[in-house]
Amino acid sequence: MKKILVYDTTLRDGSQGENISFSLEDKLHIVKKLDDLGLDYIEGGWPGSNSKDVAFYSRAQELKLKHAKLAAFGSTRHPRHTASHDRNLQALIEANTPVVTIFGKTWDLHVKVALGISLKENLDLIGESVAFLKSQGKEVIYDAEHFFDGFKADSAYALATLKAAEEAGADTIVLCDTNGGTVTADIRERFQAASKHLKTPLGIHTHNDCEMAVANSIAAVQQGAVHVQGTINGYGERCGNANLCSVIPNLELKLGMHSIGKENLKRLTEVSHYVSELANLLPRQDLPYVGKSAFAHKGGIHVSAVMKETSAYEHVDPAVVGNERRVLVSELSGKSNVIYKAEERGLKIDKSSPDAKVVVEKLKEMEHDGYQFEGAEASFEILFDKLVHHTKEFFELDGFRVITEKKGVNEPYSEAVIKLRVDGKEEHTAAEGVGPVSALDRALRKSLTTFFPCIRDIRLTDYKVRVLNPKGATDAKVRVLIETSDGHDTWGTVGVSENLIEASWQALVDSITYKLKKEYG
Amino acid sequence: MKKILVYDTTLRDGSQGENISFSLEDKLHIVKKLDDLGLDYIEGGWPGSNSKDVAFYSRAQELKLKHAKLAAFGSTRHPRHTASHDRNLQALIEANTPVVTIFGKTWDLHVKVALGISLKENLDLIGESVAFLKSQGKEVIYDAEHFFDGFKADSAYALATLKAAEEAGADTIVLCDTNGGTVTADIRERFQAASKHLKTPLGIHTHNDCEMAVANSIAAVQQGAVHVQGTINGYGERCGNANLCSVIPNLELKLGMHSIGKENLKRLTEVSHYVSELANLLPRQDLPYVGKSAFAHKGGIHVSAVMKETSAYEHVDPAVVGNERRVLVSELSGKSNVIYKAEERGLKIDKSSPDAKVVVEKLKEMEHDGYQFEGAEASFEILFDKLVHHTKEFFELDGFRVITEKKGVNEPYSEAVIKLRVDGKEEHTAAEGVGPVSALDRALRKSLTTFFPCIRDIRLTDYKVRVLNPKGATDAKVRVLIETSDGHDTWGTVGVSENLIEASWQALVDSITYKLKKEYG
Repeated sequence: MKKILVYDTTLRDGSQGENISFSLEDKLHIVKKLDDLGLDYIEGGWPGSNSKDVAFYSRAQELKLKHAKLAAFGSTRHPRHTASHDRNLQALIEANTPVVTIFGKTWDLHVKVALGISLKENLDLIGESVAFLKSQGKEVIYDAEHFFDGFKADSAYALATLKAAEEAGADTIVLCDTNGGTVTADIRERFQAASKHLKTPLGIHTHNDCEMAVANSIAAVQQGAVHVQGTINGYGERCGNANLCSVIPNLELKLGMHSIGKENLKRLTEVSHYVSELANLLPRQDLPYVGKSAFAHKGGIHVSAVMKETSAYEHVDPAVVGNERRVLVSELSGKSNVIYKAEERGLKIDKSSPDAKVVVEKLKEMEHDGYQFEGAEASFEILFDKLVHHTKEFFELDGFRVITEKKGVNEPYSEAVIKLRVDGKEEHTAAEGVGPVSALDRALRKSLTTFFPCIRDIRLTDYKVRVLNPKGATDAKVRVLIETSDGHDTWGTVGVSENLIEASWQALVDSITYKLKKEYG
Repeated sequence: MKKILVYDTTLRDGSQGENISFSLEDKLHIVKKLDDLGLDYIEGGWPGSNSKDVAFYSRAQELKLKHAKLAAFGSTRHPRHTASHDRNLQALIEANTPVVTIFGKTWDLHVKVALGISLKENLDLIGESVAFLKSQGKEVIYDAEHFFDGFKADSAYALATLKAAEEAGADTIVLCDTNGGTVTADIRERFQAASKHLKTPLGIHTHNDCEMAVANSIAAVQQGAVHVQGTINGYGERCGNANLCSVIPNLELKLGMHSIGKENLKRLTEVSHYVSELANLLPRQDLPYVGKSAFAHKGGIHVSAVMKETSAYEHVDPAVVGNERRVLVSELSGKSNVIYKAEERGLKIDKSSPDAKVVVEKLKEMEHDGYQFEGAEASFEILFDKLVHHTKEFFELDGFRVITEKKGVNEPYSEAVIKLRVDGKEEHTAAEGVGPVSALDRALRKSLTTFFPCIRDIRLTDYKVRVLNPKGATDAKVRVLIETSDGHDTWGTVGVSENLIEASWQALVDSITYKLKKEYG
């Protein structure tokens, strides 16, 4: 089976997308996740362009990658510097990655207008930059920027730039449709023309400005490309890059080629959601293969046909990409889901019991209100116990007060006062925090630790806020998701309210209740 | 110039999309809008399947369309009815449209499993249904459902179904990739094979399950299709239909063919937004051609090149589709972005001045701290004014206190107290809100309205919170983005802090400052 190498540039080209900005920690988490997915190359950033990317490569040295090679991205040398004295190339060496990817100019217009140098000088820039990086022991990937536009404008010159990279020893030459303006038939033809003149393995890098990035990548692979560049969820400048979450399953399932392999493919949906979560973007429901709607059936005819024969209206089995079939507007499927979910967590319930009906109704009502139990299984379990086993609360709240005070231009000060009772015994205490939620969290734990010392072991490891109806402005409903760990286990809880403090409170109480249930329940 | 007919099915296939549902009034408005855009056919619904669509066709009789022909959609006759006594075909006649579109089975699997009849009977269904509609004086478009899968399974039978439609007099035969699972190369080949056997004009109808719907439509046109079906914004079941907002400009600008014409093309962006508005969906920013980000530039290198020569990083001129160029300011951006952005907003600055350096440095520092000025242009402008023109504040804060109090299981209560001064005159007031930020917002406006009555006109229209380092849990840094409107203009502001109240405060102050600058600045 033919092997196609997958090169991810979510962290570099992807972060050029509007509204996308990853923190250093986000970037490190994503690298681990993409390595686990079985990608071949992960491009982390452009160390020559900003200090965050320099810091990234320094921290990335500690990562133990299982399979992927880390790549640093940059450009050919500056026209007025020699390769060995070029600051940008130097930064690439200092990034200390096994792979370096540099882009060079292919389009005569760009050489003249953007660089302002002669066509001959540009060939020198390319050749010398590649040769220098090779002399430093790097695997060099050469991105031929604007190849498809350049080939249209002056095919002989475009090919000459590729030749310059090949002769200097580039390991892979990637043909880029940088402006994303090329239609599939032209990609096919121009890719074919280039491949006739080169011996070096070729790759493809496309953008989505004609809504053809995925089709163009696949067309190039069918013309012999062995390396495909793209981003998770298609994030990227303007209309985005080729979406690897579509490219990869197309390679595996439609072309019968090998990329990340069938086992890894089952994690694709999860990785797509993970990256959108870190990008703080709502996952697009209509994304092919990995979207929530990708295998959702609404039309009555489709639903009844799918129930008879899944291939009738499904081009692939959703399970192979880790997704699932959904039938919209179906009472029955709701109940089965709840039962399935409960049993998965070892909670016993009879499908035909009145309890099952109560749980399903309550969950539907809560989900309608904005609760979400994906990633908040502890809240689901606590709710289930309350409804089915009528468990009692571990403590009773009299009340709390959270105050944030600001004087002039100083940073504000936040404090929480809380009064609660455990078995009739009252505790009244206070704590401060960097913000109101942090103060409340501290006051709550402080007051309960007297009764339940095991609370000392737990800490919040994640806190997320999502505004559910942004148009409601500051009166909008918010959903808070909290992740808690006690060193052994990690669990998620959820709260929803128009008041952020109340939403946070609900998630905090569930977070602690889950621990107490584990210890004393 | 070759003419390609455009057939819109937003109101029928598009409304199968999850979360999409148009009211009868919406549908009538959209028909008018699409007619104005110059589309050739508009499919309004399936009168045989629901009463809303029957009502639609009755109301649609009153519409005076300039150019488009209205089409009614349905299926071939029921296996147990004759064509002239089939309820579904009857409903199509009663819809009283010049055009009727019916779909029939092409894939042997579907004939056997979904219809449960013999292959021969299915050919009769197709032929008799088309012939009956022709006898009633209709223009008949025949949709060959699952053509591409059917051709793969049994090409001879698939072609026989098309022949049955042709011989019965179908005016157009549309080859459908109903499951959306076919890659471009196979679309090309199978389309070519079909066209060799038919004299009837051919059309194409694709779905986006491989993220190839647009590329597949264009490939079919290059193989001779003269009729393209799709939906506005690509709405549709699962991953959607071919997006006409990409197909149309690709036809006009990339293939040099005639569809709606260059004048109408300028209204494409507006129509895209209009339909997403009626569908009550946020417009996707990264949509090709018509999205807000489609011509947005973020990387410094791209920006400086675009300033020299727009074709450097733009595949078409945004104006031809009614869109516009935008330059984003971010940590990835160099001086060029800042200068461009400033000039765009009428702010004057000399690129080589020390001021320019100060602004760029400050912006980079703030972005490193988590500020983001995309979508927060008002904060950018206020910052610019402060740094370059040393403008003074409109008011001076003495302090504020925000309290959230909860008693037992009741919903909490939030209140804010604020003291500030304008030209030495003190204002000390309080307000309550559904949450702490809402209370602070109200107290701030209340206290300032006395001095600046124009504040009464503004309202917050959007509020977003993003936790920048979620792993910091409740001590994490948050970024707040606020959108404000005064009925004429809308502007965005930003705040960042580990304290949510402080971050919200910064964005609120900028929101009000921008308005005051507009009125009194």
